Amino acid sequence: MLGSCIENVRKKVPLIHNITNYVTVNDVANVLLACGGSPIMSDEPEDVVDITSICGGLNINIGTLNRSSIEAMHRAGLKALKLGHVIVLDPVGAGASALRTTTAAGLMKRIRFTAIRGNISEIKTLALGSGTTKGVDADVADAVTEESLDDAVEFAKSLAAATGSLIAITGAIDLVADGERCFVIRNGRPEMGKITGTGCQLSAMMTAFLVANPDAPLEAAAAAVCTMGLAGEIGWSRMQEGEGNATYRNRIIDAVYNMDGKTLDQGAKYEIR
Amino acid sequence: MLGSCIENVRKKVPLIHNITNYVTVNDVANVLLACGGSPIMSDEPEDVVDITSICGGLNINIGTLNRSSIEAMHRAGLKALKLGHVIVLDPVGAGASALRTTTAAGLMKRIRFTAIRGNISEIKTLALGSGTTKGVDADVADAVTEESLDDAVEFAKSLAAATGSLIAITGAIDLVADGERCFVIRNGRPEMGKITGTGCQLSAMMTAFLVANPDAPLEAAAAAVCTMGLAGEIGWSRMQEGEGNATYRNRIIDAVYNMDGKTLDQGAKYEIR
Amino acid sequence: MLGSCIENVRKKVPLIHNITNYVTVNDVANVLLACGGSPIMSDEPEDVVDITSICGGLNINIGTLNRSSIEAMHRAGLKALKLGHVIVLDPVGAGASALRTTTAAGLMKRIRFTAIRGNISEIKTLALGSGTTKGVDADVADAVTEESLDDAVEFAKSLAAATGSLIAITGAIDLVADGERCFVIRNGRPEMGKITGTGCQLSAMMTAFLVANPDAPLEAAAAAVCTMGLAGEIGWSRMQEGEGNATYRNRIIDAVYNMDGKTLDQGAKYEIR
Repeated sequence: MLGSCIENVRKKVPLIHNITNYVTVNDVANVLLACGGSPIMSDEPEDVVDITSICGGLNINIGTLNRSSIEAMHRAGLKALKLGHVIVLDPVGAGASALRTTTAAGLMKRIRFTAIRGNISEIKTLALGSGTTKGVDADVADAVTEESLDDAVEFAKSLAAATGSLIAITGAIDLVADGERCFVIRNGRPEMGKITGTGCQLSAMMTAFLVANPDAPLEAAAAAVCTMGLAGEIGWSRMQEGEGNATYRNRIIDAVYNMDGKTLDQGAKYEIR
Repeated sequence: MLGSCIENVRKKVPLIHNITNYVTVNDVANVLLACGGSPIMSDEPEDVVDITSICGGLNINIGTLNRSSIEAMHRAGLKALKLGHVIVLDPVGAGASALRTTTAAGLMKRIRFTAIRGNISEIKTLALGSGTTKGVDADVADAVTEESLDDAVEFAKSLAAATGSLIAITGAIDLVADGERCFVIRNGRPEMGKITGTGCQLSAMMTAFLVANPDAPLEAAAAAVCTMGLAGEIGWSRMQEGEGNATYRNRIIDAVYNMDGKTLDQGAKYEIR
Repeated sequence: MLGSCIENVRKKVPLIHNITNYVTVNDVANVLLACGGSPIMSDEPEDVVDITSICGGLNINIGTLNRSSIEAMHRAGLKALKLGHVIVLDPVGAGASALRTTTAAGLMKRIRFTAIRGNISEIKTLALGSGTTKGVDADVADAVTEESLDDAVEFAKSLAAATGSLIAITGAIDLVADGERCFVIRNGRPEMGKITGTGCQLSAMMTAFLVANPDAPLEAAAAAVCTMGLAGEIGWSRMQEGEGNATYRNRIIDAVYNMDGKTLDQGAKYEIR
C-alpha cells in the first residue's frame, strides 16, 4: 500500500514550490529529486505567486524566516489554497521565539494546510499557542515514548480534527494522524538527529507524496515518514568505520534515491490506531 | 586545446564574484575551488561594487532572486562592465515567472554579458521575451535532439550574434556558440539532472574559465562545459551499489578537482559547426 | 587538557545561535552537531533577541552580510552581551570591502567578543582599520611563517590585550592568544584551503567549545582549532584515489564526529609562547 505512494511520485514527478530555510535547502532540493519529485525555491513576494501557480504543491518551512519571506509565505499560501494545491507547514522552532510562534499561528489562521509536520514541542506550541521548544529540537520532557503514546495519539487526532490538517509528529516514534486514524511509525535511527535538516527534508518529501497521491492523503503522508525513516536505517547499515554525520547525510539521500515500492512495503514498520 | 583552458584556471586562480541562489551556493563555491578558481559571494547592494572590483569575473544567477539582490546584480554588473570584467548570466527559471523573465531581460538591456548559460527553455525565453519553462527544468517539447540540432545550432548562433554574448544551451546535447561557430558537445550523463545545481556550478566554472583564457572565449566556455560533462561521466563511473544523487554530487566535484588538461583533451566529445 | 574541552562539549550540548553566511551554513550546522553542540540559525532582527536568549553562545559571521542581518548582529550581540554569553566574531572578508570592514569595526565598538577568529589579513584589517584581504583568502604577503612567527605572536597578544578578546589567526600555522599566552598550533593540511567554509566551521565550533568550558577560555579556543586541524589530518588520511574536495569536506566533519578527548590529546600539535 505505502509502496505505491512512492511509485506514484516517481511516475508523476510533482513540481514542489519550497519557501524554506537556507540552512538545509540544498538537501531539501536533492531529496525531492531523490524521491522522484522536482524542486523549485522562491521566497520573494513578487515571485512566489507565479511560481506556486505552476507547481503541484507548496512546502512552507519557517526555519530562517524573515519579514520578506513571511509575506511570501502568506501570498504563496493563499494562491495555493485558491488553486486547491497541497500545502505543508513545517513550523521549525515554533515555541523558541515569539516571531516563529506567531508566524506559524498567523499562517494557520488564513491557510488550511494539507499537513503540518514538526517535532512534538513545535506541534504542542501550535496547539497551545506557546511552548518550550529547545531551539530547533524537541524538549526532552515532551518526547513521545511508549508510556505517553496513547495520549500522544489522541493529541494528534484531536489536533488534526480541529485544524482539518494531517498532523505529523516526528521523533523516536513518529505519528501521522487525521481526525480518525493515526499511523504509529517505528522506522528511523537516533543518529538521524545528529544531521541537520532531516525534518526539513521529510516535510518536502511529504509535500511531493501528497501531490502524487491525492486519493489517499493519510497513507501518502505516512509513506513519506516511513521512506525517510527507512532510508535512515538503510543509510546507517552502509556506514563504514570512521564515517560520521556528514557521510550519513549523503547515505540517507542516496537510500531515498534507490527506494522502490517493494523495499518500502517490506521495510515500513507501523501500526494504525 | 580545451585542456589548456583548465590549466590556465589552475595557474591564474581567478577570483570570481558570485551573486547566486542560496540553494546550490555551497556546491558553486566548492566547484570553483575544485577547478582552480577562488569564490566570493556577496549580494548586498552596498557591498557588491567593492567586491566585484577586486575580482576577475562576475557570475549572476537569478535562481532565488529578491528585490535587494536584483539591485545588487545591476550595480555589480555595471561596475564589472566598466572594468571590462567577464560577466556571465545564468537565467534560472526565466519563463517560469514574470519577475524572473523581466529581471533577465532588464539585466541584458543594460549589461553586455560575456556569456549566457541556461537550458533551452530559459534561453528561448530570453530570445522571445516569454517562455514555457517548467520550473527550473527545460520543457521537454523544447529539448535539443539530433533531429532539432541544426535548428538549435542556428538559433544559438543568431542569438549570440544579436546579443554579442556567447550562448551556452545545456541539456542532453550541449551547444556553445558565438555568432559564427558552435561547439556541439556530447559529454555528460542523464543522471546529472537528478542533482540540484549542476547548471549553477557550470555557470560559475564558465566564469572562471573565461577569466583565465581571455584570448579564446569560445574555447574557454566550451572547455567549461566539457569539464562539467566529463566530470559527470568520471563521477558516474566511480559510483558503487547503493549510492545515489547525494554521493554522485560529491563524485562530480571530486572529478573536477582531479581534472587535468590531458584528461580533458582526451575525454572532451565535441564537434564544431 | 585540550581533550577534556571536547568532552565537555559532548556532555553539555551547548545551543549555539549562528548569524552566518548562506554559503557554508549547512556545514556549520553539521559540524556543530558533529562536535556535540546544537545549532540554531536566525538572522531576522525581530527574531534574534528571543533566539539568542535561549542559547549559550552567539557566532557572528559576516560572510554574506546584508542590511537586515547587520542589524540582527547588533541586536543579538547586545542581548548576548547583557546575558554574559560567549560571543565569537568571524570577520569574513574584512579588508575586501568597505562594508565588511566597517561592519566588523562597528560590532567591535559596541560588543566585547569572547573571541575573534579570522585569517591574518582579516585580523590585520581589524587591528589597522584597513587591509589588503584578497577576497575571502589571506594575502600571501601577510602569511604567518616560521620567519614571521615571533612578530605574529606578539601581534596576536597585543591585539588580544587591546580588545579584551581572544584572537585566533588561522592559516598554515595557527595562533590563539590572550594578552599573555599564545598557542602556536601546527595541525591541519594545506588541502583544507580547497574546501569552502573550514574557517566558518571552526568559528562555530569555537563558540561551542567556549560555552562548554567557561573556566578555561584560551584552552577551549585552542582545542577547537586543534580539533579542526586534526580532523583535517584524519580526513585526509582516509582519502581514496579519485576523491577531491567535496568528499574531503565530508571526511573532515566525519572526523570531528568521531573525535574523542584522547584522540585530540594525542594528535594536538602545539606549543605555548
